[in-house]
Amino acid sequence: MIANRTHVTDMILAAKVRKGLKWAQVAEAVGQSKEWTTAACLGQMTFSKQQAETVGALFDLSDEAIAWLQIVPHKGVAGIPTDPLLYRLYEIVSVYGGSIKELIHEEFGDGIMSAIDFSLDIQREKDPKGDRVQMVMSGKFLPYKRY
Amino acid sequence: MIANRTHVTDMILAAKVRKGLKWAQVAEAVGQSKEWTTAACLGQMTFSKQQAETVGALFDLSDEAIAWLQIVPHKGVAGIPTDPLLYRLYEIVSVYGGSIKELIHEEFGDGIMSAIDFSLDIQREKDPKGDRVQMVMSGKFLPYKRY
Amino acid sequence: MIANRTHVTDMILAAKVRKGLKWAQVAEAVGQSKEWTTAACLGQMTFSKQQAETVGALFDLSDEAIAWLQIVPHKGVAGIPTDPLLYRLYEIVSVYGGSIKELIHEEFGDGIMSAIDFSLDIQREKDPKGDRVQMVMSGKFLPYKRY
Amino acid sequence: MIANRTHVTDMILAAKVRKGLKWAQVAEAVGQSKEWTTAACLGQMTFSKQQAETVGALFDLSDEAIAWLQIVPHKGVAGIPTDPLLYRLYEIVSVYGGSIKELIHEEFGDGIMSAIDFSLDIQREKDPKGDRVQMVMSGKFLPYKRY
Amino acid sequence: MIANRTHVTDMILAAKVRKGLKWAQVAEAVGQSKEWTTAACLGQMTFSKQQAETVGALFDLSDEAIAWLQIVPHKGVAGIPTDPLLYRLYEIVSVYGGSIKELIHEEFGDGIMSAIDFSLDIQREKDPKGDRVQMVMSGKFLPYKRY
Amino acid sequence: MIANRTHVTDMILAAKVRKGLKWAQVAEAVGQSKEWTTAACLGQMTFSKQQAETVGALFDLSDEAIAWLQIVPHKGVAGIPTDPLLYRLYEIVSVYGGSIKELIHEEFGDGIMSAIDFSLDIQREKDPKGDRVQMVMSGKFLPYKRY
Amino acid sequence: MIANRTHVTDMILAAKVRKGLKWAQVAEAVGQSKEWTTAACLGQMTFSKQQAETVGALFDLSDEAIAWLQIVPHKGVAGIPTDPLLYRLYEIVSVYGGSIKELIHEEFGDGIMSAIDFSLDIQREKDPKGDRVQMVMSGKFLPYKRY
Amino acid sequence: MIANRTHVTDMILAAKVRKGLKWAQVAEAVGQSKEWTTAACLGQMTFSKQQAETVGALFDLSDEAIAWLQIVPHKGVAGIPTDPLLYRLYEIVSVYGGSIKELIHEEFGDGIMSAIDFSLDIQREKDPKGDRVQMVMSGKFLPYKRY
Amino acid sequence: MIANRTHVTDMILAAKVRKGLKWAQVAEAVGQSKEWTTAACLGQMTFSKQQAETVGALFDLSDEAIAWLQIVPHKGVAGIPTDPLLYRLYEIVSVYGGSIKELIHEEFGDGIMSAIDFSLDIQREKDPKGDRVQMVMSGKFLPYKRY
Amino acid sequence: MIANRTHVTDMILAAKVRKGLKWAQVAEAVGQSKEWTTAACLGQMTFSKQQAETVGALFDLSDEAIAWLQIVPHKGVAGIPTDPLLYRLYEIVSVYGGSIKELIHEEFGDGIMSAIDFSLDIQREKDPKGDRVQMVMSGKFLPYKRY
Repeated sequence: MIANRTHVTDMILAAKVRKGLKWAQVAEAVGQSKEWTTAACLGQMTFSKQQAETVGALFDLSDEAIAWLQIVPHKGVAGIPTDPLLYRLYEIVSVYGGSIKELIHEEFGDGIMSAIDFSLDIQREKDPKGDRVQMVMSGKFLPYKRY
Repeated sequence: MIANRTHVTDMILAAKVRKGLKWAQVAEAVGQSKEWTTAACLGQMTFSKQQAETVGALFDLSDEAIAWLQIVPHKGVAGIPTDPLLYRLYEIVSVYGGSIKELIHEEFGDGIMSAIDFSLDIQREKDPKGDRVQMVMSGKFLPYKRY
Repeated sequence: MIANRTHVTDMILAAKVRKGLKWAQVAEAVGQSKEWTTAACLGQMTFSKQQAETVGALFDLSDEAIAWLQIVPHKGVAGIPTDPLLYRLYEIVSVYGGSIKELIHEEFGDGIMSAIDFSLDIQREKDPKGDRVQMVMSGKFLPYKRY
Repeated sequence: MIANRTHVTDMILAAKVRKGLKWAQVAEAVGQSKEWTTAACLGQMTFSKQQAETVGALFDLSDEAIAWLQIVPHKGVAGIPTDPLLYRLYEIVSVYGGSIKELIHEEFGDGIMSAIDFSLDIQREKDPKGDRVQMVMSGKFLPYKRY
Repeated sequence: MIANRTHVTDMILAAKVRKGLKWAQVAEAVGQSKEWTTAACLGQMTFSKQQAETVGALFDLSDEAIAWLQIVPHKGVAGIPTDPLLYRLYEIVSVYGGSIKELIHEEFGDGIMSAIDFSLDIQREKDPKGDRVQMVMSGKFLPYKRY
Repeated sequence: MIANRTHVTDMILAAKVRKGLKWAQVAEAVGQSKEWTTAACLGQMTFSKQQAETVGALFDLSDEAIAWLQIVPHKGVAGIPTDPLLYRLYEIVSVYGGSIKELIHEEFGDGIMSAIDFSLDIQREKDPKGDRVQMVMSGKFLPYKRY
Repeated sequence: MIANRTHVTDMILAAKVRKGLKWAQVAEAVGQSKEWTTAACLGQMTFSKQQAETVGALFDLSDEAIAWLQIVPHKGVAGIPTDPLLYRLYEIVSVYGGSIKELIHEEFGDGIMSAIDFSLDIQREKDPKGDRVQMVMSGKFLPYKRY
Repeated sequence: MIANRTHVTDMILAAKVRKGLKWAQVAEAVGQSKEWTTAACLGQMTFSKQQAETVGALFDLSDEAIAWLQIVPHKGVAGIPTDPLLYRLYEIVSVYGGSIKELIHEEFGDGIMSAIDFSLDIQREKDPKGDRVQMVMSGKFLPYKRY
Repeated sequence: MIANRTHVTDMILAAKVRKGLKWAQVAEAVGQSKEWTTAACLGQMTFSKQQAETVGALFDLSDEAIAWLQIVPHKGVAGIPTDPLLYRLYEIVSVYGGSIKELIHEEFGDGIMSAIDFSLDIQREKDPKGDRVQMVMSGKFLPYKRY
Repeated sequence: MIANRTHVTDMILAAKVRKGLKWAQVAEAVGQSKEWTTAACLGQMTFSKQQAETVGALFDLSDEAIAWLQIVPHKGVAGIPTDPLLYRLYEIVSVYGGSIKELIHEEFGDGIMSAIDFSLDIQREKDPKGDRVQMVMSGKFLPYKRY
């Protein structure tokens, strides 16, 4: 009995290690970006029926698991991360958050950058002093409704 | 007596409202990007002597306050933010963090994206369905030392 | 020196008690709903210049305070509320949250109800067994972007 | 051995995915609103004997599980939610809570909106700019006893 | 400027120590029980105009403070108490809470004991082995609405 | 292997649902009040050998489980409860705690109400406006030792 | 205006540093042990009228402060201490707590060691390998009431 | 497979209940005090090879479990205890901690009482007004190094 | 099915106890320092293919477990440690952290000591007054980028 | 009135910025290492009378402040640091803590590295790939007492 999506994520991760698959390969098979596809495999996005079947075939999942991939998951991870790579992302929010807030309000007025109508793109940025990680975030600006 | 940088940040914010200055104007006077300059004014970065004097002149700060602007501040804000704009940034880490970790490791191996040798650029992205906020983050990849 | 909006909220609350004003009167003067106007007076929304001057006149605020009313505030209150009226709102999220999530996804698919493009209306609901509080929330459905 | 209601909720969720049932269908069979029925299936409300048997038949539950559906459950979910849909509900309490408190007290005096003598109704609100989620909450006003 | 009720509570506590008043005397003057009156003086209940004036006269409060006594306060104290007397109350909930829940549901079905339509009475209970504190709590049973 | 009392509590709760027993019946068989007996069954009190055997017979427990019923358990439940019935008890401490402290000290001086030499009695209080839950707590007053 | 005991504790600590008094001298003047007297000066115990006047004379306190010394204080310090000396005390509870519980129950049955009918004695224990701190705690055993 | 000491502690506790052993008997067999032996059995201290074999024989442990008894365990229990007996120990630190710190520093200067070079002795203290628990703690004073 | 690295760490720890291996032996076989090797075995670093196979042979791991040793793990342990040895490390950060920050900034300016381009060396330091633990940390200084 | 050491630390920090002093200069005047002296100035160590007078002269402190410098302070900073430099220290404990524990126990047996009989030395380590921060910690090994 599978009672939540986390169990399916565990199956995917175990199969990925066993089979030596790359996220980029999965993304190509699914037909979406590597960022969205990875998030969906990790239980943060919802697959269509066809995508779920593709993912199921790649990772040898049962029909029950494939059905769960099409259910909207419970998203997000609680708390402040301890993993150093993840913590650096949190630290950027902690150190730069106030400045980002000031600059978005200066440009757009009161509102937010959507985290739903949002996309993310991660690339290697060649640099002679050492390559860099480039992350481009794009989210729709949503103004606060005045009523 | 000024015993910490926070007090100077309060002075800057109060003066900014009274004088109606824009962060972009401050950045131009300081000679750095608007992102770095705003972070420094909010007490997250350290000004050089000349920059501190420029900032002091713009915001009518005392000599003691200008001296504090050149002291390395205690950085970061604790906890999970409640402000909706800031929370969305945290939520991106919460929802996409695992995927970012997977994709950086797939591309670069074990290591992190630096939050110190790091830059940030925020722009308006024109879009007929509603303008978007584009945030470009660039951080040096640092491989874990094996010894 | 006023260094944050909280100080202005304190001024408004103190003046409201001294003068015996009602939020409905403030809302009428401001020209918005009582829900939005109260939220703005409590430091959760941003007033236009004209609205800020109206509010300033009603509550005898200084020019500096009126300037702060037009600055986008740092919003939200941290933690789980202890006040019984506020706790009941939190409890509704705690008890019904999972069901709300299931029903919105069943109707709309993966996405959220916006808390930004959002309005709230609070009314007395006459009832012979004891009057009731009716709260109507209306938020735009935002589907998760697939990319 | 079933030692708590959570285990029965897991059985219901697993069966729902396997069988492709909708909450609206369950509600119709049970004879209550979709909001109450979903909350009860998720372990937040108590079924009558007849309702429990109906639910048991729909989800292929054992007699022991059906008996647990009639036991008053331990309700509520701890903490601040991380799921974006759920967080938006919490954010509404965080941003608007103070205003709701002010307006209910202005209208009714000291007391609370009951979360027990309470009902919830969720509907799609058609809108040319994008459909909206409408949530209507109705709770009895309970005045504080003075004694 | 008085910006919240806590400030008035501080004034009352300081005056009480200076003047050597007893809560029972205050209650008699106010015309309510000692339990309700003490709670109201500590900023947990709302006084009527006449009661507020009586309290103001007893504790030499300003008109502004008397006005605040008639405003519905922000109630409750956060967290788990450290004071030993208060902690014992919390411990009773921690040790006996589950049993109280079981026994109320066994007697009344699904619902709660109201903490709003509620009264409290504290008395000395003479006992040759050492006097006891007797606390009688009486709260209306509120059944969960089924809809 | 049974390594803690919690496991025995789970067995009791599962058997209680299967067999449809009432706490009052268990209390009668055990020969103590329903409040103490329920607390003991839920793993908060220690049974005598004879009581443990009675409980074991009622709930079909193994000899190992019956032995555990005679071991002093690890008591108390951590944190602030989320269940609405339990939360109301916590809320009474949060709202009335300060007043209870004041009134006990006014009557008895410095000390506490014991939560160990303590008894609890829960009764239905008939009331034409809706029946009430009456809880009577009686705890020995313990004065602080001065040495 | 003095609104709580903490303020008086601050006065005592400031005066103690200025005047170079020792706790042992204060205890002698007060006529109680150094452990009780220090706890009382730090706002954890209640002085009698005569003791309060003695303390007031030693530390040059105002009449208002002396009155506060006779009021039962809000006791205890929240959380887990960071000071190394205090943390070691907490660590003893963390490391040895379970064993203390086992041994007291083995000797006395179900109940607790009182922290109210309790005394503490701290002495230097001469030791050629380095002197030791000896702390003797003595608390009345309170058996759990069975009713 | 045994992957941590906690599992061995569970085995010991289960065997102790089954066999009706006393900690004092275990201590005698091990040849240490009852306080150290109990702590070691509960996974807070490290047994020598011979002691581990004695303990293993008493509690019928496997060779793998006996090997784990000789591994330095991960010590301490997190957080603030809820069990009333344990909480009283924490409360003594909370109420008396500041005084203990003052008195140790007055006698010894800057430093701490060691919790490592430390012993504990628990005894019944006969008393006509009710027997008492006496706990004697002895820890080496460690002065802060000045360098 | 192995779904995360923690499971492999458990296998290594269990095998280490069974086989009586020393970390120094493992390090020698792996060809790295004992500090890095231990960290990698505990799931904090990533092994190369050859190293993973060596470790697998030493600890009798399955091929699936060996594959997991080459996957970048989720690093770090949450919270403040309770184990006394670990707590002392945290305490050094708590007591000396501010001073370390001051001295690094005084020597290097604004920036950090890297915890990624970092190495650690632990040695016994012979001392007639009792041997000492010497820990040498070496991390690259990373200056904050100004842009 | 100065009621705690924190206030004196603030005075020192404010004077240090005004006067442009370096910690190394202060250490030389005090006659201790820069690490101990900085910690003492930041309120974590206790100055002797002569040292306190030297520090008082350097920073223009009042006699009352100089007296406080000789009082053992309340040490340590609570929680997990947000400042990036400080967080890296915490991260080292989080990532390497388990390994440090294993290696110290392998070398020394059960016990800890003292954080009291402890010294710290921070130096610039020249490196062509970028200079490094070298931190040498030396703490006495304290074996757990067996009794």
